[in-house]
Amino acid sequence: MCGTDAPVAGPVSNGSHPVQGTPSSSPYQNVNDFISNVNRFKIIESTLREGEQFANAFFDTATKVRMQRKSSVRPNHLPIPTFRLVTLRRPRFGTACDPSDEFGVDYIELTSPVSSPQSFEDCKTICGLGLKAKILTHVRCNMEDAKKAVECGVDGVDLVIGTSSFLREYSHGKSIQMIEKIALEVIEYVKSQGVEVRFSSEDSFRSDLVDLLTLYKAVDNAGVNRVGVADTVGGATPRMVYDLIRTLRGVVGCDIETHFHDDTGCAVANAHSALEAGATHIDTSVLGIGERNGITPLGALMARMVVTAPQYVTKKYNLKVLKEVEELVASAVQVNIPFNNPITGFCAFTHKAGIHAKAILANPSTYEIIDPALFGLTRYISINSRITGWNAIRARCDQLGLTMTDDQVKEVTAKIKQMADIRPLAIDDTDSIIHSYHMGLQKNVEQKA
Amino acid sequence: MCGTDAPVAGPVSNGSHPVQGTPSSSPYQNVNDFISNVNRFKIIESTLREGEQFANAFFDTATKVRMQRKSSVRPNHLPIPTFRLVTLRRPRFGTACDPSDEFGVDYIELTSPVSSPQSFEDCKTICGLGLKAKILTHVRCNMEDAKKAVECGVDGVDLVIGTSSFLREYSHGKSIQMIEKIALEVIEYVKSQGVEVRFSSEDSFRSDLVDLLTLYKAVDNAGVNRVGVADTVGGATPRMVYDLIRTLRGVVGCDIETHFHDDTGCAVANAHSALEAGATHIDTSVLGIGERNGITPLGALMARMVVTAPQYVTKKYNLKVLKEVEELVASAVQVNIPFNNPITGFCAFTHKAGIHAKAILANPSTYEIIDPALFGLTRYISINSRITGWNAIRARCDQLGLTMTDDQVKEVTAKIKQMADIRPLAIDDTDSIIHSYHMGLQKNVEQKA
Ligand SMILES: [Zn+2]
Ligand SMILES: [Zn+2]
Repeated sequence: MCGTDAPVAGPVSNGSHPVQGTPSSSPYQNVNDFISNVNRFKIIESTLREGEQFANAFFDTATKVRMQRKSSVRPNHLPIPTFRLVTLRRPRFGTACDPSDEFGVDYIELTSPVSSPQSFEDCKTICGLGLKAKILTHVRCNMEDAKKAVECGVDGVDLVIGTSSFLREYSHGKSIQMIEKIALEVIEYVKSQGVEVRFSSEDSFRSDLVDLLTLYKAVDNAGVNRVGVADTVGGATPRMVYDLIRTLRGVVGCDIETHFHDDTGCAVANAHSALEAGATHIDTSVLGIGERNGITPLGALMARMVVTAPQYVTKKYNLKVLKEVEELVASAVQVNIPFNNPITGFCAFTHKAGIHAKAILANPSTYEIIDPALFGLTRYISINSRITGWNAIRARCDQLGLTMTDDQVKEVTAKIKQMADIRPLAIDDTDSIIHSYHMGLQKNVEQKA
Repeated sequence: MCGTDAPVAGPVSNGSHPVQGTPSSSPYQNVNDFISNVNRFKIIESTLREGEQFANAFFDTATKVRMQRKSSVRPNHLPIPTFRLVTLRRPRFGTACDPSDEFGVDYIELTSPVSSPQSFEDCKTICGLGLKAKILTHVRCNMEDAKKAVECGVDGVDLVIGTSSFLREYSHGKSIQMIEKIALEVIEYVKSQGVEVRFSSEDSFRSDLVDLLTLYKAVDNAGVNRVGVADTVGGATPRMVYDLIRTLRGVVGCDIETHFHDDTGCAVANAHSALEAGATHIDTSVLGIGERNGITPLGALMARMVVTAPQYVTKKYNLKVLKEVEELVASAVQVNIPFNNPITGFCAFTHKAGIHAKAILANPSTYEIIDPALFGLTRYISINSRITGWNAIRARCDQLGLTMTDDQVKEVTAKIKQMADIRPLAIDDTDSIIHSYHMGLQKNVEQKA
């Protein structure tokens, strides 16, 4: 499963971002770990399934509003956000589309066609679009749901059933033996229809390990394409994930899909750990929208993986459309992009402390692990506060074309800090102080002359 | 360092949240790991240092605005947000304050008094308040800064210097030998003043491991209280963290503080990994505000740790004031609480999918790893969408005091789903459908009678 492409860790090599100066000296970054799939993972984008479970999600309406506005642009009756998301997710290879109109995820997962008549219609319509990304739908593990899914023309059926004692007691009431029996029947049916099939447990980290492994082994033997591990309640830690996936990797030969909720803030790290342990597929949604506070966000996962596996990620995914996709979804579900969002948060590439700004000006890699240009973004160095340093002010003087000695720059920096202690400074305030100081200098020179 | 308090994993035991049903069956949750400090960690709250590096932070002004409004309430000239934060962070033990006015972090870290005259004054003022939390200030590792810090009356001085090749080349230009020489002199001075001292490297994960360990061993021998490991660029993964801290734990006898930036979405998971590997202190800030997209957020760390170590966290920290503290800081730096914030995000405890809602109603632990009541919050079950299930509607009918058979509830559920396909439903829309359906039933009964 592994082999030739050795994982390359460390900062992204790209123009101003040289790879690490002393790679061999840090033993934690350059180990060739042969079980790891960080350089070959696939993304299952679930904004249209998991994301529909987000409290504010109602894609069809946001849609209709947009359709009214943009009907000439999008003259079809597919909900617009759905359409845009699907389009944006078309793989870039071999298509003639505008590059800004495609991100390149491998799979798209849709809400179960059983959940409502509209869901059934949406599913059929999207399957009929002939997209490059494979279309999946996520259904309960029973024959009726599976048949409805196949009827839609999906590329793959994602079966799910709760295996934890909690879910077996309070949700469906089935024994593990009964789950296995049903699963094998449904899997056989889906395979007989020439459709991909995944079998996933739910709340996997609170399920009995022996039950889990027994079940996964049985469905693997039955020829399932993927098994799925889900941290449905968001309580797993990276080490729990590594240990479970590593064990599972030794038990099944099929692909391993993973699904992480973010209740305890670990959904991105857990996805990374899963890949290191041999998982092959990661479920994401745009901005992480989903049940409760959501799942692994597509953007944050890209931030993580572009650092871990820069060549793979930059070659495979069209990172420059990330911001556009996020803004589209944020507006469809009426939320703001979080201020602290990786990559696209408003301050993700803003540097403020003087000591940081100085080094960033000399070499961006000193305080940046990700080159913002990879995502079509730029960095910003904030010089307008009392913690600014004279090197940042020096850079600004140079931008303004004002010649000063180091001592003079230090003197004007002190003045700026003094002022910043009193009130917040906008960039033009800072420029005024610099200009007036510089004019004072010139006056002195003239007086002496 | 470890010993009696065995880590207890799994969901929080609290009223409706029973501990896991089959604890011994999942080998990944109940290992007594004797190096782990998940049950004995300390928090260093750095909102007033790291947080001041956040692009939008200017505490003194937000302050002054508030002072004008609230001057009668807070009649002192300390910046109000600073004051409130400090007050809120007072340990709860042995104080007579209103419990809503205290969170209970162990340390508060302030901006270097060298960075501006106001910072110096703030630092002195806060040290003079006689708080229970220890006051630290974070300064560059040189004698001048250390003297200024001690002069403020802090309980501890946090020394920092860049050790990565990047920082040594582009920032301060010092060799490792020179760093060690300076560090030992400064540490000796701070100790001679009877003040706690921490020595931290910067960009630790891109520093040469042998250099790092040599340096840490030397300062440990010199009697430093803590060494600090910092992922300054936010590129570390949980496994890198575990490996480095585990190694360091074998090299030094002193405490180990860790500082994680969130550029790749791993700051919470990295903190957890660090504790598992033997780190003792975690740096946080409220909402994670800090340089770029910030560091480990206090709230998200609490979400993580209340699951990993429920007894320790609920006993030590006053979780019920978290929301208030976050709202205070959000308003001071003019940001919104992210929609997907753990615990306090608007949908953190909202359940939407029918399959989830059904189980949650039977037992909240099925889809909740954290009891919202621990944070003074409540859960909400969204029934207003086409993916709702009839069990959620049944619960609502019961709340409304309407008696219906299961078949009737299923019929009205179908009507609600049908309507939700057309437009988003507010709670009162759903209630109207239920009421009108119920009235129809009664009319039928009356006609038959
Ligand atoms: Zn989910
Ligand atoms: Zn920092």
